[in-house]
Formats: sequence, C-alpha cells, structure tokens
Amino acid sequence: MVRITFPDGSVREYENGITGLQIAEQISPKLAKEVYSATVNGEVRDLTRPITADSTIKLHKWDDEEGKHAFWHSSAHLLAGALELLYPGIKFGIGPAVESGFYYDVDPGEGKVITDTDLPAIESKMKELAAGNLVYSRKEVSKKEALEIFTKKGDEYKTELISELEDGTISLYSQGDFTDLCKGPHLPSTEPLKAIKLLSVAGAYWRGNENRKMLTRIYGITFPKQKLLDEYLVFLEEARKRDHRKLGRELELFTFSPKVGMGLPLWMPKGAELRQNLISFMTKVLKKRGYKIVATPHIGNVNLYKTSGHYEKYGKDSFQPISTPQEGEQFMLKPMNCPHHCEIFNATPHSYKDLPLRMAEFGTVYRYEQSGELHGLTRVRSFTQDDAHHFCRPDQLKDEFKSIIDLVQFIFKAVSFEEFTAQISLRDPDNKDKYIGTDENWEKAERAIIEAAQEKNLQTTVVPGEAAFYGPKLDFMVKDALGRKWQLGTIQVDYNLPERFDLSYNGSDNQKHRPVMLHRAIFGSMERFVAVLIENSAGKFPLWLAPEKAVILPISEKFNDYAGKVLEILNNSDICTLIDERSEKIGKKIRDNELKRIPYLLIIGEKEVENGTISVRKQGEGDKGSMKIEEFVSFINDEIKKEIAV
Amino acid sequence: MVRITFPDGSVREYENGITGLQIAEQISPKLAKEVYSATVNGEVRDLTRPITADSTIKLHKWDDEEGKHAFWHSSAHLLAGALELLYPGIKFGIGPAVESGFYYDVDPGEGKVITDTDLPAIESKMKELAAGNLVYSRKEVSKKEALEIFTKKGDEYKTELISELEDGTISLYSQGDFTDLCKGPHLPSTEPLKAIKLLSVAGAYWRGNENRKMLTRIYGITFPKQKLLDEYLVFLEEARKRDHRKLGRELELFTFSPKVGMGLPLWMPKGAELRQNLISFMTKVLKKRGYKIVATPHIGNVNLYKTSGHYEKYGKDSFQPISTPQEGEQFMLKPMNCPHHCEIFNATPHSYKDLPLRMAEFGTVYRYEQSGELHGLTRVRSFTQDDAHHFCRPDQLKDEFKSIIDLVQFIFKAVSFEEFTAQISLRDPDNKDKYIGTDENWEKAERAIIEAAQEKNLQTTVVPGEAAFYGPKLDFMVKDALGRKWQLGTIQVDYNLPERFDLSYNGSDNQKHRPVMLHRAIFGSMERFVAVLIENSAGKFPLWLAPEKAVILPISEKFNDYAGKVLEILNNSDICTLIDERSEKIGKKIRDNELKRIPYLLIIGEKEVENGTISVRKQGEGDKGSMKIEEFVSFINDEIKKEIAV
Repeated sequence: MVRITFPDGSVREYENGITGLQIAEQISPKLAKEVYSATVNGEVRDLTRPITADSTIKLHKWDDEEGKHAFWHSSAHLLAGALELLYPGIKFGIGPAVESGFYYDVDPGEGKVITDTDLPAIESKMKELAAGNLVYSRKEVSKKEALEIFTKKGDEYKTELISELEDGTISLYSQGDFTDLCKGPHLPSTEPLKAIKLLSVAGAYWRGNENRKMLTRIYGITFPKQKLLDEYLVFLEEARKRDHRKLGRELELFTFSPKVGMGLPLWMPKGAELRQNLISFMTKVLKKRGYKIVATPHIGNVNLYKTSGHYEKYGKDSFQPISTPQEGEQFMLKPMNCPHHCEIFNATPHSYKDLPLRMAEFGTVYRYEQSGELHGLTRVRSFTQDDAHHFCRPDQLKDEFKSIIDLVQFIFKAVSFEEFTAQISLRDPDNKDKYIGTDENWEKAERAIIEAAQEKNLQTTVVPGEAAFYGPKLDFMVKDALGRKWQLGTIQVDYNLPERFDLSYNGSDNQKHRPVMLHRAIFGSMERFVAVLIENSAGKFPLWLAPEKAVILPISEKFNDYAGKVLEILNNSDICTLIDERSEKIGKKIRDNELKRIPYLLIIGEKEVENGTISVRKQGEGDKGSMKIEEFVSFINDEIKKEIAV
Repeated sequence: MVRITFPDGSVREYENGITGLQIAEQISPKLAKEVYSATVNGEVRDLTRPITADSTIKLHKWDDEEGKHAFWHSSAHLLAGALELLYPGIKFGIGPAVESGFYYDVDPGEGKVITDTDLPAIESKMKELAAGNLVYSRKEVSKKEALEIFTKKGDEYKTELISELEDGTISLYSQGDFTDLCKGPHLPSTEPLKAIKLLSVAGAYWRGNENRKMLTRIYGITFPKQKLLDEYLVFLEEARKRDHRKLGRELELFTFSPKVGMGLPLWMPKGAELRQNLISFMTKVLKKRGYKIVATPHIGNVNLYKTSGHYEKYGKDSFQPISTPQEGEQFMLKPMNCPHHCEIFNATPHSYKDLPLRMAEFGTVYRYEQSGELHGLTRVRSFTQDDAHHFCRPDQLKDEFKSIIDLVQFIFKAVSFEEFTAQISLRDPDNKDKYIGTDENWEKAERAIIEAAQEKNLQTTVVPGEAAFYGPKLDFMVKDALGRKWQLGTIQVDYNLPERFDLSYNGSDNQKHRPVMLHRAIFGSMERFVAVLIENSAGKFPLWLAPEKAVILPISEKFNDYAGKVLEILNNSDICTLIDERSEKIGKKIRDNELKRIPYLLIIGEKEVENGTISVRKQGEGDKGSMKIEEFVSFINDEIKKEIAV
C-alpha cells in the first residue's frame, strides 16, 4: 500500500502502483475526465504513471497552468503526428507548450514549404487523429537506443538534441504511429482535445541561432470545449484590433527606424504628447505628495556601477561599456537610476528631521534585449521608468509603504485600471544566508509590508523565497479590458545600496545612521505603460490623456473662416484642436475623424456661425448639443478635472 | 620710400624702414602712447619692426583684441623677469596672453613652492621693473643658437619646445636681463604697464599631459590705467559672487559626482525644477507657434550617423561607439538630434500643404570634452538642447526665418536678455566649391536670412565665409548684467541632410520635392543657459523661474499651526512654498531666507492669525502689506502672468 496525501491535508491509502488517473476515477468519474496531469512529490507527471511510494499528490485541471501545459504539449505532438502523415520525411525541431497554445518547429524538407493556406488541411488531419482517442504512451530509453531510432528516421535535429542529453534521463512519447523525444508529461489520450485551431506560420532559426537553418514554426491552440475556442478566437480578434503596434502606427503615436536601431522608440508628436500628459499628471501628483524631482544623465562611469554592484551583473549579453580618449576611463549606458540618486543624496548632509526624502525621476535606462525578444513598446532597449527612491529611517518604513500603496491606488484609478492584485515577496526562511541585511531589519521590513498592505485593504498573495537578495518587495498586477494581466508597479526594500554608497543621516542622538532605501515605480516604464494603455483602451484614451482633444468639421467651405477663429480660441485655451477643411460631405468627415479616436467632433454650419456656437459631438456618445465656445472650454476642462482630481 | 595704406583707404608715403610706432608718432604723439601693436599686411607685429615694402597697416590700441594681446603677452614676460630675479634657477614653461590677462607656467625647482602668499612680493618686483621703462627687443636666432642658450641656462622646458620648431622661424625677446623664446609681438617697452595685479596660483601639467610634471601656473592681469584695474577687480568680485558653480552649490541647484563622471551634471530638486520651468514655458510657447514636440532615444546605430555624415567626424577624441552582443552592431551616444528627426519625418508621407513641419525636442546630446576644458554647466559632456528642425519648402524659408527671429526676440525678452546682437554667416564668395547645394539655393537662402533680419529690425553683422558647408546661418549673442557676451541661439539652413536622408514631400504638381531643413536652438543648451541665467541674475531668478516661490516665517512657534494651514493652501495652489519653523528670532529668519533667494517671505504673527491674513515681504523690495491667502495666490499668479505673457 502507498499513503497518498492530498492538498487539503487528507491522507488515503491505495494499492502500490496506482496511477493519478485511477485515484481521480475513484474520487469521481467526472473528475477523471477533467484532470490532465498530476504533481507527485513536487514533480509534474503523466496521470498514467504508477505511484510506488508514499506521496503527496495534486491533480491538475484546465484551470491550472500545469493542466493547460500538458494539454497543449500533447497538442503539439498531435500536430507533429498529423504533419508526419501529410508530409512524409518531414523533420522535427522542438514543439513546446507556450503561454497560449503551442508550436512546433519543422523542416518540411528540401524545396517544400508549409504556408498559412496549408493549415486547414493539417488541422483536419489533427481532428481526425484526435477523434481516434489515441493513447499517449511513455517509454524510457538509453541514449544509444534514442540515437539509433532518430538516426534511422533521419531526423538530425532530434539526434543533435539527444547527443546533448545525459544517459538515463531520456524518454520517448508516442501516440498512434508518431514517436517523439520528450520529457512529458502528457494527457492519457487525445480524447480531451475537442477544439483544435492552427493559428499561423512563421520562420524560426534552429536553436534561435541566426547562423543555423530557418525552420517553419506552426502555432496552434486547443481547448477541451468548442465554446472556449470560439471565445478565444473572439478575444484574439479583439486583441489584434487593439495591438499597440498596429494602433501606434495608425494613430501616429510612435515609430521605429532600423537606422536608429531596433527597440529604440521614436515618439512622434501625438505619442510624445500622450507620454508627456502622463508625465505631467504624475509629476503634479508626486509634488503634492512631497516628492522631489531630479534629473540625471543617461550614462555613468563604470566606477559608479562597481560601487553599486551592477557592474558584476553586466555581461557579454549587455550593451558594452563606452571608452573615451582617456585611458582606462569607461562609461556605461544607465542600467538603473538608483546609483545616480544615491550620489545626489550624498551631495548634501541630511538630518533625521529631513527624512523621508522621496526622490523621483522619469529616468531612462538601457537594456540590450535580443532582437527576437523585441516587441513594440513592451520589450524595448531603452525605456523611461517613473522611478523614485524613498530614503527613510527604519521606523518610517511602514508609513512609506502605505503612502506608496495609496499613490498606486490613486494612479491606477486615474488611468482606469481598477482591477489589480498584489504579490508580497518575502525571504526564504530556510535560506537566510542568501540575503543581505540583519534578521531584525528583514523581520521589520516584512512586517511593515504585510501590515501596510492590510491597512490599505490590498488584496495580496504572500510568496516566501521570491524576495530580492537585498530586501522584500511588493508587486502590482493589473487586469486590462480583455482580462490580460500586466505587471506594472513595484515597491522594493533595499538594505544593500545604502551600505554600498555609505549613505547616512544625523540621528536625534547626533550620531550617523544608515537610512533604508525603497525603490518604487508605478507605471513601470512609460513605454510599456503606454502600450498597455493603448491595448486597454483600443486607442480611445480618456480625455485628459488624448493628444488631440477635438476636431472642427465645417459643413462646407464657406464656414472655414469661422472654424479658423474657433480653432485659434481653443488652441489658445490649451485645448489641442484640429480642423478638417477638406471639401468632403460632413458624414464622411465624421466617420474619418472618429477613426482617429479624437474625443470631440465640433460641427460648424449656418446656424452655428449665426449664433456664435459650435455643435458638439462626443466619440461613442453622440450629440451633446450646441455650446458657446467659452462654454465648451469650461465643459471640457470640467470633464478633465473630473477624470483626474489630483 | 614705402606706400602705406590705412584702414580708411588713405595712402601715405614714408621712408623705407619706418616703424609702426614712428608712423603713429607722426600722426600724433598722443596716439603713439596709445598703440600697442600693428597689423602689417595681415600679420600682427611689434610696433618697432621696420616696414620695408609697400604695406597695409592697422594700429592696435587697448580696445582691439590685438592691442590687449600684446599688452598682456608683454606682461607675462615681465612676470617671468620678476620671477627670475626672485627665484634664481626657476625654469619656464609657456606664458601666453589669455582672454582676460595672462599666465606663466613655471617650475620653481626641487623643494621650492610659490603660493598665493608670495604674489604681493612678485607683483612689487614687476612694478619696480616696469617703472624702469625696459625696452622689449626682438632677435632672430638659429635653432642651434637657441638650443645652446637655453641648454646653458638649464631650462629643459624651453629646449623641448625649441627642438620641435623649424630652423629659421625662431625669435627671442628680451627686456632688461630676461630673455624668452617667443614669436611676439610685444609692446615697445614696459612703460604702458601702469596697473599690475597677480590673481592666483594653480597647478598645470606640462603640455596638458597628466603624465608630465605638474608646473605652477601664475595668473595675472595688467591695465594701462589704475582705474581700469580697479573696475576690473570690482567686476571680478561681482563675477565671483555670481559664479554659477558657487551659486549652484549654495542654492542646491546641481552637483557633480566623480563616480558618475566629470562633466555629467546631476540636477538636484531645485535645479531640476528651475530647468523644468524653462522647459514648460518654452513648450507652451512652441505649441502656440505650431511646433510639434517629439522624443527620441539618446543613442543611435552607427548606420544612422553614416547616413548623416556625423560618423566621419567622429574620432579618437570622442566618446567611443557602444558594441553589443550582435557582431558588427554598434551604437553611438547621440552627437546631434537631427538624424533622429529626419527618421521621424520619413516615417509618414508629407504633402506640400503640411509644410512647414516644425519638429522640436529637448534633446540630450553627448560630446567628450577634455577634462581640463570642463567648467561647471558651461562646458559639460552631456547637455540638453532646446532643439528644433523646420522642414519647409524653399519658398517658405524667409517666413520661417522671420518666425524664428520673432520667437528668439520673444524668449530673450521673457528671460530678461534684452540686449543682444546677431551675426549672419554667409558663404565665401571666392570658394563656392567648399559648399554643398546649388548657387540658386544659396542665393535664395542668404537673401532670405538678410531680408528676414531686416524686416524684424534685427541688429546684425554680416560675415562672409563663416557659413557651415551645408548652409548659411544666423547666431545670437546676448550681453549679461556684467556686460559679458554669451552665444545662445542659432539658426542654420541645411541642404545636406535632406539629401542624405532622401527627405521628400509631394508638391502641388504631385511630384516629389526635396524640403529644406532649418536647425535652430534658442537657449542653446539647457545647462549653459541655466549657467548664464544664474550669473546674470546672481541667483535672484524672476518669480516664474524660481524653484521656490515663497517661505512662511512664523514669528513664534505658537503660530506654526496656522502657518501649516497656509503652507498647504499655497502648495495646493501650485505655489511651491516652504516653512521655516525654527525657534529663531524673526530678524534672523528673514536674513537666512533672503540668502536662499526665495522671492517672497510670508510673516505670520498674532495679527495675521486673528485676521486670517499673511504679511507679505518681497526680496529686494520690502513690505507689500497684509493679504488674505487667496489674495496672495492671485497676486503671485498675476505677477507670473505679467512676467511671461505667452
């Protein structure tokens, strides 16, 4: 017999060799249909592997990451099986599950190509195979055996992978006639793969190396129910429409230039205005909350980063240092703003009465992301953090945390991200020597975070072992309009840099004391945040953020003079306004300008000229009636004030 | 006989061998006392050298640069003569005239030092020698002879210099017992050196090389009248008080950190606020004038600068390129913003109707200045230009120039630089092949600048041959409160980059046309401009620029509660206000806060608490009476509006 402990702590005894699937069946046949893998003694495994010792077990359904992973990984094998039938001689690279779905990298063979138009046929073959309820079976083999099998098959990609594996760790999985090199785990059978969709074809270098062969990557996704797939395809279509790269181009917000360099965003006028609106708003909020804004250069001498410790982590995969005519002198593109801020802190003496000092900067930092990793504004090589550092006394830690949580709540509300969660990352209590700082300080800091979060009614999860080596932290995740989660703000306690930069303040005892430092960002990076904003709002920004607030549409050219006058008054009142003087029908003008996502359309005809008014129409809300120009100015300013009551 | 042509075109005949000094004496004995050197056939020479051929001549008095140069260069020799008498065996490096005065680098010999306390004695010796009316005499010698003289004297610095000279070009100058290697020119005698002042002692590496010996540099200045020296010393004292490096530290505006790197300014909170006030003001003005603001990264791929042509000019004396993990990929710190702006221009199509496009950015650029050249904020390694580029049709050039001149006049007035001059730099008409662009375009552009300047009533000088190779330009020089001139704004026509970046717009003929580009900056660089502002205002900034507008001074601690309420109201009204709650006498509080240059002091006592008022005192103007808090808010906002009516 084996003793099996369940997640709720209950323990049952089963016959030795029982499988996860059998345990599920004994609980309920319905459950057995809903589970896809199991974690046994901490290892995620096939449901069908026998359990031969006392174990803990957790069964994974669709809602668990582990369940989805087995589901999609099995789907990748199904895709490969279908491809082998349709394209005899096809060779296989790797085929993993990914965040949403799976892919397989394949080499269809000399002169053969697979394109988007081939996907329906492949999809059909997958469905046909899945309907046969093929069983996924696992077999452990020696390295020699594995090499023989794939050498015989002529699949040099697999033999290359096997040659790098250690003997005794190699397993194969088969379903139907298809066999793959694989660690698993997989579903018991293809039975749950009810809804199958192949999404796209792309090129991908073998092993991500530009000097190796370009393989064909086929992306797909599967679900246990057709309804889930239908919903996903609607979501996908909506996400495509909201893709910030597409909208960024259409709305002329930003651009990239290969000459300037990939991953280096060029903010076009409207995007720069949007970004500046965010910065101005945030600056105003920060000043009211006692922050001091500073400005520092984008480079620093390597000695700065040797002091901070960043230099050690600076490797061959980074932007390389900048040499100068002076021998031995080197600068680095700024990887972080904190060392510069520590030097500003050190430029003047500080008394305990002056603390906390909250130092903020919209500080630009540089990270060399691999070109394959770059993605619009969400993965770039230069980005501007809404960075701040709180230099405080240890006894102020909790209040500072509360003040930042309060700020995060205020800002997220202003930008309509009202649904968010927070994670508190603590030290691993079993590995205390991994961390810098005294036990006392850690306990104080961890308690401060937990209490601050509770007192601010923050919905949190607490994860031990996830803290940085220099202190515990609190991260914020927001959910966007499509339900996607984005990590934005973060607050981190730091006991390390104050030591390294020898920061101090004069205590009430007239002795030198070490301050604690808090790193915090709310938007995270301006680039990433704007991307999230675009995708969340589909480009329909709240009025205060919109780079252009209104467009004037004269019904015919004879009203252009009056329209010009209105334009001038509005622009002089700091309401950024355009005019559409084309000799088009008013209906077309309205439609064209709605596409540009400009919040207000101001229509001008005979009546408006006579009465000295404008006819106001709001995007998505329609007619707002006639107004005097000054009335519209107040109207729009009131709306902005309501949106962001700083 | 020789025919001598004077600057006014008149010609006179003199005996062959006549000297400049004799010519001056023949004109008037008074003139002869006032001239210090002469330009003969374009070469600046001693007044006492015989003229042996027909020549043009210009006699130089104190007001000419050439006159001052001879005066101060002769003073440097006088200093050396005095040193040789006081410090036998002293060795000499170089001793040039500089912008204000002169210096000499000397090696007093093993174990000997010269410090500030020694200067009065040296000064006395100089005065004693000068009173002897020593004659400066010139002697041309062979290289061998020169080497023998200085080898015998044991002056290895001079022999090193001589060894690098060509034979036949070497001259010596003597006055009294002192002889120096020197090209000249010098005064006829020490007689005009009436007022002598040694200013300071500093260290200076021989030949500016950190690996060579550190010599002692003695700075001094001389004048032909004691009154001029007295005025200069007052000016110097005033300039010292206004030194932006000193005030920057005292007012906590900016700092430098050796760890971050020399020449890389760190803007402290108050300085960042001041800088941001300038940026916000300029941005508002620019928007009203149809500029589009963009934002670009601080680096660019080398290919961008190969396209622009900047790469060719990028040498060993620059910040070196930044390598990346990708072989062959290199980035550069941005030396200019224009290439990035060209790429933004190229990101969308343009019609002739959309031009001019005025693209502006507060863009940060990097230049590697030698460490010895760095000076506070005026010579730095990273600075932010208030840069803009006008992309326009050739027929719009004059109007664009006028719009920029108008903007410059508006901005200079707002920052109280009402005294300025402008220089128009044209092509050298005799070397047209040095320049890019057609004759027609150059003529059009030069005419446009000249006419625009005239129509805007600009006081200009026109200098042919000073244009950049890519187009003519217009530079602005402002005069500060101490009468010092600073080059700030510049407007440059560019025919080169539009070609290199293949910029185009669609003409009314539906054909592609090449736009013209104007580069322009008004502040020049934010760093340099803030330095000029500080030195011009001695830190007493106009209200709109001041980082802190008011400070509240409670007469005693019992009024602190009310003071705190006032503080909150003012800060919530965007009037940055401090409070001085120290338990000091009110007189001391007033004095201390006046030193901080805060424009308004708000005094609160019994009466103010009773009446709900504040007692308002303005820096330099005294009592402004009692006001309700809201009244003060309007009062201060009105004052700012008057200062900068955008």
